[in-house]
Amino acid sequence: MQQSEQEQQKEQVIAQNEIPDLIINPYEVVNNSKKQIDYDKLIQSFGCQRIEQTHLDRIQALTQKPVHHYLRRGIFFSHRDLNQVLDAYEAGKGFYLYTGRGPSGESMHVGHLMPFIFTKYLQEAFDVPVVIELSDDEKFFHKSETTLEEYQRYGYENAKDIIACGFDVNKTFIFLSSQYAGHMYHNICKFQHAITYSQLRGIFGLNESDNCGKVAYPAVQAAPSLSSSFKHIFGKDEVMCLVPQGIDQDPYFRMTRDVCYKLKVPKTGCIHSQFLPGLHGFGTKMGTTDPTSAIFLTDTAKEIEEKIKKHALSGGGMTKKEHQEKGADLTVDVPYHYLRFFLEDDARLEEIRVQYGKGVMMTSEVKKELINVITKIVTEHQQRRALVTDEIVQKFMELRPLSNYPPKKNN
Amino acid sequence: MQQSEQEQQKEQVIAQNEIPDLIINPYEVVNNSKKQIDYDKLIQSFGCQRIEQTHLDRIQALTQKPVHHYLRRGIFFSHRDLNQVLDAYEAGKGFYLYTGRGPSGESMHVGHLMPFIFTKYLQEAFDVPVVIELSDDEKFFHKSETTLEEYQRYGYENAKDIIACGFDVNKTFIFLSSQYAGHMYHNICKFQHAITYSQLRGIFGLNESDNCGKVAYPAVQAAPSLSSSFKHIFGKDEVMCLVPQGIDQDPYFRMTRDVCYKLKVPKTGCIHSQFLPGLHGFGTKMGTTDPTSAIFLTDTAKEIEEKIKKHALSGGGMTKKEHQEKGADLTVDVPYHYLRFFLEDDARLEEIRVQYGKGVMMTSEVKKELINVITKIVTEHQQRRALVTDEIVQKFMELRPLSNYPPKKNN
Repeated sequence: MQQSEQEQQKEQVIAQNEIPDLIINPYEVVNNSKKQIDYDKLIQSFGCQRIEQTHLDRIQALTQKPVHHYLRRGIFFSHRDLNQVLDAYEAGKGFYLYTGRGPSGESMHVGHLMPFIFTKYLQEAFDVPVVIELSDDEKFFHKSETTLEEYQRYGYENAKDIIACGFDVNKTFIFLSSQYAGHMYHNICKFQHAITYSQLRGIFGLNESDNCGKVAYPAVQAAPSLSSSFKHIFGKDEVMCLVPQGIDQDPYFRMTRDVCYKLKVPKTGCIHSQFLPGLHGFGTKMGTTDPTSAIFLTDTAKEIEEKIKKHALSGGGMTKKEHQEKGADLTVDVPYHYLRFFLEDDARLEEIRVQYGKGVMMTSEVKKELINVITKIVTEHQQRRALVTDEIVQKFMELRPLSNYPPKKNN
Repeated sequence: MQQSEQEQQKEQVIAQNEIPDLIINPYEVVNNSKKQIDYDKLIQSFGCQRIEQTHLDRIQALTQKPVHHYLRRGIFFSHRDLNQVLDAYEAGKGFYLYTGRGPSGESMHVGHLMPFIFTKYLQEAFDVPVVIELSDDEKFFHKSETTLEEYQRYGYENAKDIIACGFDVNKTFIFLSSQYAGHMYHNICKFQHAITYSQLRGIFGLNESDNCGKVAYPAVQAAPSLSSSFKHIFGKDEVMCLVPQGIDQDPYFRMTRDVCYKLKVPKTGCIHSQFLPGLHGFGTKMGTTDPTSAIFLTDTAKEIEEKIKKHALSGGGMTKKEHQEKGADLTVDVPYHYLRFFLEDDARLEEIRVQYGKGVMMTSEVKKELINVITKIVTEHQQRRALVTDEIVQKFMELRPLSNYPPKKNN
């Protein structure tokens, strides 16, 4: 299950991404190419592995369920040690899922939902425990726009959106890192002890005028990768961890895996997603400073319609004639890419790809289809979120065993 | 109660000690002068204040008790904001005492007792709460000779020696920082957030190959200076803190005080002690690697006698004749300095100073007197320690209110 020292070193050496026009780290994603990121090159640069058809077949066989369209379409496209996680599952030892969110504000956009939608699918498919970290401390150290107490409140509000994705309260533990840190402080210390300042600087690009919290925090994000951070769930068992994440979070887990190796515990498994582009096109950011840049989970049907109609960058021709002659440029078209993420029907998506690509289908039709899909998702999300009371949040945050650990024998 | 911005800056500028032959920081005390450290210069260099007779008079008036011989003899010689702490006490708001120990090993020497003997005196004299941090995490980050679990065990053993100093369980809270960190994590984050890496490096002399724990930890030592780190004792009250400490710990609290200023809470008060020299002379270290360098709390009467007779550096003349002619050099004499620390009788100490200094009294007589004093202290300590059960340690570590907070009205 462990890598050789040589592989270990290789992983460290290639830890820095060197693709032109592209900066990807947990604090910054800048894509100046204005096109879809070349994820093949990113895999090579980061030193992770592509998710192959064999992985999909294996997951389908193990779970007896069709794999999620995020996997079918390569939206979750890359991994580290996925096979080892599946081996543990097959051997009846189980594994657990760990994901999280940095609560930078009260409102989340549809891009934020992706890891949770996917984690919820994995939880249902494998019936394994899920732990979710809300890193209010990270945002306090890195964003520093308000107080720790306010980031804690954002985390609490974000928990409601996460719960609204449909997680099973008996199988899911959600925590604010500022509240839970004490329970995993031993592991936090072990991570802080195992990493030097200069290694951390190399991974995260820190500088000397950065606050000490930025040096302390990576261990707080790493600690939940060890099952011993959750004694109320796993007792003394050593259970493998799989982390669904945006590929920008990989530096945290490269570091985590290096330390797992030193601590002689199984390395954390990772599974990486592509980025959902901003409405204004590949390489643009989604954020509250420009409300037209993203679909927020609080948007009304009317707002969604307007945003997509007016602001979602089209790859279609400038005129009807040009569009019919050349077709749409799908490499830059935002509505089509949003459908890749949010339209579950493979046949319909393929039809759009072909017809829109040929210029038979118009941008307005594609946008209309996207408006329907996204409005349904957001409206239903809002309905579920309205039902999430403070008591329900407390229940998810309570320290307790989870019903699906230890795994049943007939897994 | 707050310093002006100007004073604030001044305090930062002079944070570095620049006395030749002397390195003093929390991780290193090197005195190459082979003589008593020039504490007046140190006060100037660190930018703290001398404890004056007026302070002693005020303490005696407030407590209605004779001041401790550590104060009478200038062993606790320097302070920061002691008057503000006494003001708070006089105003009936009270204050609390915070001290601690880095559990580097199982066995402690008599020098380690000093801050606890003094804190216990202050507790009795002022009847205020005491909190004691056992920084197992610090030792793990800085000493790194064994596991965090082992440092935790040392901390637990050291707690027994601390309790044996006679602390009142109803007025004293002892905690291992690895176990308690979660309860003060909010304040830890605030300290980590308020200090940059380059400031920390300036204060503690860190380098880039140091582990991240060394960057994270100072906030863990600072956090107990805020009463909000002990909600079970102080609730929501903002209570002033006084930290009895070896002067080597001052850099931690200079940093702490800078942050208090930013956080708009009262600055931590400090009261600093001189160092007890090693048996081999001023500028020599006490430690387990050379058992003849110190009197350990586990030493037998016979071991104490032998160590003092054979190894305590004498300032007496080389021959009886020379001694009677020139007298003893008290500036290098270890037995005399140990008596300063451990012989409570002022008149007898003065007699020894004069008679020994004149060469009337011989080194062997002074050593015999010291052997009696120290053997009594260590033997009685051992008897008290033998009575400290695990249950008693647990009781001191339990989260609970303390009986002397809030202070009684007639203080």
